[in-house]
Amino acid sequence: PNYVCRTVPAGVYNMEVCVDSVESAINAEQGGASRLELCGNLMEGGTTPSLGMLKVVKQKVRIPVFVMIRPRGGDFLYSSVEREVMMVDLCLAKEHGADGIVLGALTENGRIDKDFCAQLIGLARPLPVTFHRAFDMVADPQQALEDVISLGCERLLTSGCDSTVLEGLPTLKKLKKQSRGRIIIVPGGGINERNLPRILKDTGLREFHCSASCFKPSGMVYRNTAVYMGGALRPPEFGYKVASTDRVQTLNQIAKSTVQYSSQVKSSQ
Amino acid sequence: PNYVCRTVPAGVYNMEVCVDSVESAINAEQGGASRLELCGNLMEGGTTPSLGMLKVVKQKVRIPVFVMIRPRGGDFLYSSVEREVMMVDLCLAKEHGADGIVLGALTENGRIDKDFCAQLIGLARPLPVTFHRAFDMVADPQQALEDVISLGCERLLTSGCDSTVLEGLPTLKKLKKQSRGRIIIVPGGGINERNLPRILKDTGLREFHCSASCFKPSGMVYRNTAVYMGGALRPPEFGYKVASTDRVQTLNQIAKSTVQYSSQVKSSQ
Amino acid sequence: PNYVCRTVPAGVYNMEVCVDSVESAINAEQGGASRLELCGNLMEGGTTPSLGMLKVVKQKVRIPVFVMIRPRGGDFLYSSVEREVMMVDLCLAKEHGADGIVLGALTENGRIDKDFCAQLIGLARPLPVTFHRAFDMVADPQQALEDVISLGCERLLTSGCDSTVLEGLPTLKKLKKQSRGRIIIVPGGGINERNLPRILKDTGLREFHCSASCFKPSGMVYRNTAVYMGGALRPPEFGYKVASTDRVQTLNQIAKSTVQYSSQVKSSQ
Amino acid sequence: PNYVCRTVPAGVYNMEVCVDSVESAINAEQGGASRLELCGNLMEGGTTPSLGMLKVVKQKVRIPVFVMIRPRGGDFLYSSVEREVMMVDLCLAKEHGADGIVLGALTENGRIDKDFCAQLIGLARPLPVTFHRAFDMVADPQQALEDVISLGCERLLTSGCDSTVLEGLPTLKKLKKQSRGRIIIVPGGGINERNLPRILKDTGLREFHCSASCFKPSGMVYRNTAVYMGGALRPPEFGYKVASTDRVQTLNQIAKSTVQYSSQVKSSQ
Repeated sequence: PNYVCRTVPAGVYNMEVCVDSVESAINAEQGGASRLELCGNLMEGGTTPSLGMLKVVKQKVRIPVFVMIRPRGGDFLYSSVEREVMMVDLCLAKEHGADGIVLGALTENGRIDKDFCAQLIGLARPLPVTFHRAFDMVADPQQALEDVISLGCERLLTSGCDSTVLEGLPTLKKLKKQSRGRIIIVPGGGINERNLPRILKDTGLREFHCSASCFKPSGMVYRNTAVYMGGALRPPEFGYKVASTDRVQTLNQIAKSTVQYSSQVKSSQ
Repeated sequence: PNYVCRTVPAGVYNMEVCVDSVESAINAEQGGASRLELCGNLMEGGTTPSLGMLKVVKQKVRIPVFVMIRPRGGDFLYSSVEREVMMVDLCLAKEHGADGIVLGALTENGRIDKDFCAQLIGLARPLPVTFHRAFDMVADPQQALEDVISLGCERLLTSGCDSTVLEGLPTLKKLKKQSRGRIIIVPGGGINERNLPRILKDTGLREFHCSASCFKPSGMVYRNTAVYMGGALRPPEFGYKVASTDRVQTLNQIAKSTVQYSSQVKSSQ
Repeated sequence: PNYVCRTVPAGVYNMEVCVDSVESAINAEQGGASRLELCGNLMEGGTTPSLGMLKVVKQKVRIPVFVMIRPRGGDFLYSSVEREVMMVDLCLAKEHGADGIVLGALTENGRIDKDFCAQLIGLARPLPVTFHRAFDMVADPQQALEDVISLGCERLLTSGCDSTVLEGLPTLKKLKKQSRGRIIIVPGGGINERNLPRILKDTGLREFHCSASCFKPSGMVYRNTAVYMGGALRPPEFGYKVASTDRVQTLNQIAKSTVQYSSQVKSSQ
Repeated sequence: PNYVCRTVPAGVYNMEVCVDSVESAINAEQGGASRLELCGNLMEGGTTPSLGMLKVVKQKVRIPVFVMIRPRGGDFLYSSVEREVMMVDLCLAKEHGADGIVLGALTENGRIDKDFCAQLIGLARPLPVTFHRAFDMVADPQQALEDVISLGCERLLTSGCDSTVLEGLPTLKKLKKQSRGRIIIVPGGGINERNLPRILKDTGLREFHCSASCFKPSGMVYRNTAVYMGGALRPPEFGYKVASTDRVQTLNQIAKSTVQYSSQVKSSQ
């Protein structure tokens, strides 16, 4: 079943802004975003937002609000209780005004968890569904794309299985070609003012996803700097980074063959 | 109005475990927790959990579930839209089985935001209310304690306005003395197996708050290490730490007077 | 004065591996590195290594060892005592076997600090000098390149003034064109197996810089996890990220004009 | 052999300030520090400083400068090449004005590596030697203290084998008692203005170690925020924190027995 058109008309594009606050949602709409991806806690990569946030966001903005269903940061392998939480949150989001659902789940071997995703998508319908960057963690992107398409997802949010869209550009292009218009591929991960033109030109994609955020200093005048909430990240005590003979060798060989190839191309011209 | 008894009977104590997943909630109950503080994203210090998580937790455990109402990490100065979100989330939590509400808000000058807190507490009643560690960020703990008591909160969760309960012990003791049984002071922040006996003995407090957590490795067999979700913390590019003449001087004088005092005490004995 | 050839012969390339341990130095040579950049503490981006490390590395490897002179992490604006430290360390490195010197300093306005760099380079000669990624922090890369060339540096290590080489590719290409063989431009910052071919092909550069490192678990059998050394990074307490109307607008306009341009190109074909 | 007096006269105490820059060294002396521990890169917990830093610090301050010999962050189990580096750096530091040496090494089973430490100490003599917080990572603090004493170290820098001195206070007191004046125990790790009086009073120790640092903003007027040097810490992708039934149970039992004990004490009074 095709719930929405899977291609974007020529000359048109859609900008999805990923937000984790009402303020960001309002700013995004004012700046001209086409759509929101509403999350909680982007520091963790985006988790299920609170229902209160969804309800207030829906009062404040008119553009579509797609809601992230992700019960925690970390991997995309979910226990049975986590699955229950996701299903309840999805239904609640749908009841309270979500215009689309953003989801994803993998098996321990890095394949799309088709059974569970189908269950979630069944609950989400008739809303449009985006499969999120869990995709970037799969073992076989080609197979995974077919799985996501067969699930009927309208969109796939991906960085091309690399740390950023720019890094994943070669994979993104392959995915676009393979998709043949069966799904809207939305590049997302590290998009900024400097790399956006290259990404759009290189991929020919017509939607993109970004947070377009900046650091906003606190309004607090009194600041107790002795206290901090939450967790801290520390350099690992038991382990360290070391140059790898293997990686040096590989990079070495890549450079050699790239340069030889370039030389041959030049000399043959 | 007194909704619950503000003193704990002799020989009895209550252990509150702070959780951000159903798994943690179940583990906490199995381990003998008296009560849960249900949050999302403890990495950010605990934010409002998703309603789906609350509903599933309520199905799985029988001990009381107090729900955190905090729309984001960072400071406790909230904009008007953030206040709306908090009020909606509080009402939803109350409707869906919360056994208590955990909240807190400050003014920009580091005082308890009594007006907004009173509004939230009004919505929370008849549920018991805990004022959370926003308290640890106040400018004047003595005044702030009176404000929290006058708001009618049953409990105050605090580390004694320092980075951990152990660091804040002197302030905690003063707060306990000042409270004269008008509120249950719950020490929380960095409590572990090694420091718990000292904390309970030194303060004489009968409730405590901890996460009792450990790191659980992912179940994923296939791992794409080229990709990471969410944010990263980096050493600051524009600034660095430097020894402060003032701080050296202060620590110096503290040491001098402490040692002199100790010597006098000894010689006068 | 030209101390070394500033162009790399056709079909040849040089791989510089950035190391902060003897083990990494040995691994890099074994893997086929052409040259080492020896630093301390890569977590801070690379600082001056200890002289003991330089001496032992020189005993263990035969490829050239270029030594980083950087007294701390953070910015590249140095106080007079920091300058003294840098000059002493540079002379010591030269005396103890350094085959090249890696340095850089800026003024507070983001220009190359030509006076201080000239002083350092004077001390470094006759060794070859690489100007490091302080370059990536300048306000005007075009002017800065002329300054670095006029200082007589043999090499410029740069990511194209962006977070990684891939992100900085457009600037890197401009710099290469502008340099007209007057300096060897060495791309460095985030180079890995996946992006190296693209970087070499797109830029036509013949040297590159990378760490080629992997995480090595500690050999400790007994591990006290209650203790950690050094600093921790925490999410900032007083400030948070918010979507910026300005950035959303800018990205929006970039997308619009990019897509329109692409459409025009297509329709005109 | 007794190189220095191992007890501090009554009414006297010594403040050691841990510094990683000349500026910090000067500030520490001006603030009244008795002694410096000179390190590089405190973010990594302190590593061997560059020789240039030692030489300039020795020109600028008159108080004794103890030099850290630690080739990298992370654990204290060193490979043979790391040992070579440490020995060379130690000799260089001694030749260039170090007034004392700070060192430490462990075996993989968490014992003091007596053979290697003896070798290092032999090179360090006649300078006084401090065994550093590698001690806090040992499996058996009581045995380790005897080992450190038998090695002839004048001082032991320790947090009591816990994350901070305040956390490790019970162990610190036991170590002090066990030491019977055979070594100067220097508490270090998280000492600040608020906890220093408690630490000195509770332990009766007469030396202490701290960094007394504050954050100093960069002097750069132009700031390229698109670029960062060095590493980043991220929330782990493959694993997360979960409440542990075991830890909840243990804390539960500790609380129960502590409260019962307190009740008995009260009722028997």
